[in-house]
Amino acid sequence: MANYVIAVHCGAGYHSRQKEEAYKTLCKSICLKVCHMLEKGSEAVECVTEAVKLLEDSKLTNAGRGSSLNIRGCVECDASIMEGKKLLFGAVGAISGVQNPIEVSAMLINRQLGEKLSLGRLHPSVLVGEGASQWAVANGIHKMDPRLLITDESQKTYNNHKRKLDSHNQKVSKKRKIDHQSDDKNEEIEDLQEDKDVVQDTVGAVVMDTRRNIASAVSSGGISLKQPGRLGPAAIYGAGCWAYNQRPGKPGVGTVTSGSGEHIIRTVLARECAMSIQRENNASLGLSQGFKQSLLESEFLSEEEEKYAGVLALVHNEDNTAEVLWGHTTDSMCVGYMSSSLKKPKVVMSRLPTGGIPGKSFTMLGMPV
Amino acid sequence: MANYVIAVHCGAGYHSRQKEEAYKTLCKSICLKVCHMLEKGSEAVECVTEAVKLLEDSKLTNAGRGSSLNIRGCVECDASIMEGKKLLFGAVGAISGVQNPIEVSAMLINRQLGEKLSLGRLHPSVLVGEGASQWAVANGIHKMDPRLLITDESQKTYNNHKRKLDSHNQKVSKKRKIDHQSDDKNEEIEDLQEDKDVVQDTVGAVVMDTRRNIASAVSSGGISLKQPGRLGPAAIYGAGCWAYNQRPGKPGVGTVTSGSGEHIIRTVLARECAMSIQRENNASLGLSQGFKQSLLESEFLSEEEEKYAGVLALVHNEDNTAEVLWGHTTDSMCVGYMSSSLKKPKVVMSRLPTGGIPGKSFTMLGMPV
Repeated sequence: MANYVIAVHCGAGYHSRQKEEAYKTLCKSICLKVCHMLEKGSEAVECVTEAVKLLEDSKLTNAGRGSSLNIRGCVECDASIMEGKKLLFGAVGAISGVQNPIEVSAMLINRQLGEKLSLGRLHPSVLVGEGASQWAVANGIHKMDPRLLITDESQKTYNNHKRKLDSHNQKVSKKRKIDHQSDDKNEEIEDLQEDKDVVQDTVGAVVMDTRRNIASAVSSGGISLKQPGRLGPAAIYGAGCWAYNQRPGKPGVGTVTSGSGEHIIRTVLARECAMSIQRENNASLGLSQGFKQSLLESEFLSEEEEKYAGVLALVHNEDNTAEVLWGHTTDSMCVGYMSSSLKKPKVVMSRLPTGGIPGKSFTMLGMPV
Repeated sequence: MANYVIAVHCGAGYHSRQKEEAYKTLCKSICLKVCHMLEKGSEAVECVTEAVKLLEDSKLTNAGRGSSLNIRGCVECDASIMEGKKLLFGAVGAISGVQNPIEVSAMLINRQLGEKLSLGRLHPSVLVGEGASQWAVANGIHKMDPRLLITDESQKTYNNHKRKLDSHNQKVSKKRKIDHQSDDKNEEIEDLQEDKDVVQDTVGAVVMDTRRNIASAVSSGGISLKQPGRLGPAAIYGAGCWAYNQRPGKPGVGTVTSGSGEHIIRTVLARECAMSIQRENNASLGLSQGFKQSLLESEFLSEEEEKYAGVLALVHNEDNTAEVLWGHTTDSMCVGYMSSSLKKPKVVMSRLPTGGIPGKSFTMLGMPV
């Protein structure tokens, strides 16, 4: 029976064997730091914000500093938090010029928890673009030169992807001139996903504090070469994260998702997985059914052949036990977790079993904490 | 048995008796124009886009031209479309400098329906802020001076609201100086909602075309004096609109919502109402239960005393009959509808019955079409 739990992951996607230890060390150090906070009585929203801040600050992740660059070579981030007591949600989307987007989401939640706005206005849940960064700075968040969020590696990846795109576009345009035709269906299309080492998605964390409040948080730099202004699931209610404290007849659940953004948005994946766990009142069954029915067999994605996603869940059962579960259709997902009952953090580099097909096969594991 | 149906509303909120005829005339003219398109075989997405374009262009509505201004005195709009065949979604949020935000959402849907992007990238579903307007202009949408979206009336309302806010802030700051205390709980707080004549919310339309495809669309300028960058439900998947064609065992449904944005987002209202109708397989029962359970009795809004919302639904039953339904907790909602079976458009200014309490009482009506 854990008094508190932290679970964290650094993006479903493909984690090279070469960097495996670095990913694990990152997850481990976050678990240790956040457990220390939880032990001292810090609250779920504060702890989950800290966990995601550390993920954002790491150059290893596609969040905050080191995010994938958009088509113009800039960093634009999405981040959101949900808390399970009052069921509040705060999100920022396509934000630049702040070091930790998740801090702005936390601030949006805290405003909703505080005094009401004057003149009958409601506090916003979601702020995007320039307005979001202006609000953040007006509320005391340090304004940062957006170029400082670009790392050598993210710049290198951008250059590489941009070169591929430009060369592809050139080929298409040449072919059009020759063929006098406008479709490029016969073009041999390269795939950015081939740069496997650098394909990582939304990071996330889920926390249950000593008062048994659950909060979940996600952050992402979005897909490489994205259109500026594109919102990913980390900014969208129900898609990136979900949190719901235990209530009579319902287990408490926190979920965070990662993977192909547009698929996660259209399947409202974090919310659906959490609700499936509550409906089944059985964490493993609920998560596997939720993931399969909502994503893999979804009629909302019937035209999609491959569905890349991962989910990390924390469940607070009615008998007061807790579990951490994760599942994914991506090649890999690196998960760390710790609780008051565990002596040290557990870190797992979960990989699809041999023969598993990325985008189609689903692997899942759950552990009591 | 209708071959096609259009239903439209110009915002749940408060419609003064003085302007009632103008609202009705607007809804009526849109029904006529769109029915003409439907008769000629135009598709649901195209028709619903045209309906919302006309709503945006009207100075009477809080969408497109004449939208409520944000705290800086600018227009920033949200708009989205969902189509029920492939279940695709396109949305723009906090967009300025285009005359018809809904056109950009339609373009996002059309891109998803067309060729895939090169290099394994997915077409975006949601674009926000500066990036959204740049994408729109790059794709052929006319760039518009944002000031042209401001009408004399929207400027007057802004001036009035801004004066109230400034005077409120001055009072608070004076009181703080005197009391050396930082809370303003005892302040007598005026409410912008008192300016009832000008409080309108998200507009929307739902269409079923002759191929029995359903599409729904919404558009909004958001709340008066909003923070720049604030996203409302008209930009958020599942909140503002939902569409789902009839499939074996499930009626086809299109829903659009309007009202207190943050409440509609947190209850994913359009999606929940549509799913309730499908679950019950009874339009009236499904809508009333969906609205009550998802909104009025929602545990996600347990701290909110008043919940202002309206919903307009089009249902395509399995026996091939169709119904148009609407319900609201706001003072009023102006609805128009027409179908191939009706000789002329029907327009209703629906008002809460005598004794009904805005924000708490729910009134609903459904009509076969």
